[in-house]
Amino acid sequence: MNQPIEFFFDFVSPFGWFAAERIGGIARGHGRNVAWKPLLLGVTVKRAMGLPAVLETPLKGPYLLHDAERCAMFYGLPWRPPTPIVFSSVAAARAVIWADAQPGLDVEALVRGLYRHVWAEAGDISTPDAVADAAGSVGFDRGRLRAGIERPETKDGLRSSVADAVARGLFGSPFIVVDGEPFWGADRLSMVERWLESPW
Amino acid sequence: MNQPIEFFFDFVSPFGWFAAERIGGIARGHGRNVAWKPLLLGVTVKRAMGLPAVLETPLKGPYLLHDAERCAMFYGLPWRPPTPIVFSSVAAARAVIWADAQPGLDVEALVRGLYRHVWAEAGDISTPDAVADAAGSVGFDRGRLRAGIERPETKDGLRSSVADAVARGLFGSPFIVVDGEPFWGADRLSMVERWLESPW
Repeated sequence: MNQPIEFFFDFVSPFGWFAAERIGGIARGHGRNVAWKPLLLGVTVKRAMGLPAVLETPLKGPYLLHDAERCAMFYGLPWRPPTPIVFSSVAAARAVIWADAQPGLDVEALVRGLYRHVWAEAGDISTPDAVADAAGSVGFDRGRLRAGIERPETKDGLRSSVADAVARGLFGSPFIVVDGEPFWGADRLSMVERWLESPW
Repeated sequence: MNQPIEFFFDFVSPFGWFAAERIGGIARGHGRNVAWKPLLLGVTVKRAMGLPAVLETPLKGPYLLHDAERCAMFYGLPWRPPTPIVFSSVAAARAVIWADAQPGLDVEALVRGLYRHVWAEAGDISTPDAVADAAGSVGFDRGRLRAGIERPETKDGLRSSVADAVARGLFGSPFIVVDGEPFWGADRLSMVERWLESPW
């Protein structure tokens, strides 16, 4: 088996969702697995890059919201964003870190389920309880996952994942890394597929 | 004839070049013209958005330079960026504004010629003389263009073009506007083509 495709993402980013819906199929089509790696844009964008939150940036914020809705329609996905549109993704990111460490759990289903809950159903994933409820509704053991979110090794795992992203120069959502080669943006998946077939 | 496709760009952006190489063909294939509209990222990004220059932003700057080189190879374009990589594009933008107001001049050839000179040949387009030389080498009347750059109506035209972009929420390079619908980025040209065929 080749190296897994690393998929860095933040649940606050709908563009991460659009790519999360497709990266698993792309990976399987090329004999790869996906390594699901949450990052926190609050750390990469605000602290590491010194920029304001994207959705709160003049001109860019309104454009990207319009673009996200248009992309959802383009990809055939339902679009019902949360209110407020800016929320904490720490608990959801921790749930992914925890699930990834449990043998036999379907991390892709968890990522897509949480993403869909927040961006297609205007759902809440901003607290550990809300994340556990949403995960429970897509087939995960609510109690185990709720406890897993709070474990010290889960929290350490998320800190490591974010620090790893920053150390490697990965700052946005999604960032897709193929054999060390980074691609930023859901609109680069066709380029990722070309790279998987034959790097240039 | 349908409305022209508006193409907003800055010569400092190699992503504007990648799209400039293709937008004319896309437009012609859909019975459209291109309206070439220079903007200045120094105004849109720094003043209107309050952000640092993209290439000087931590993490993002190094990534985008790597990505630009990779994209040039992907699109089959030569890549030899200028030194220093940050330069003034005011004179080049004014040349486009001037040429666009002259009947019978091929603005697309001017845009692509200046872009290629700076990003494929590490050429200089940072002063009126350098722009006139580069334009002369791709078939334009050096003296007329050199004088045109300095005309008050040319300078006013560029100010209007930039102010129009900001007023309409267009901040990056390239921005492609089809019947009022804005698309940001060279990697969105396939979506632009889908929109031209059938808006959703």
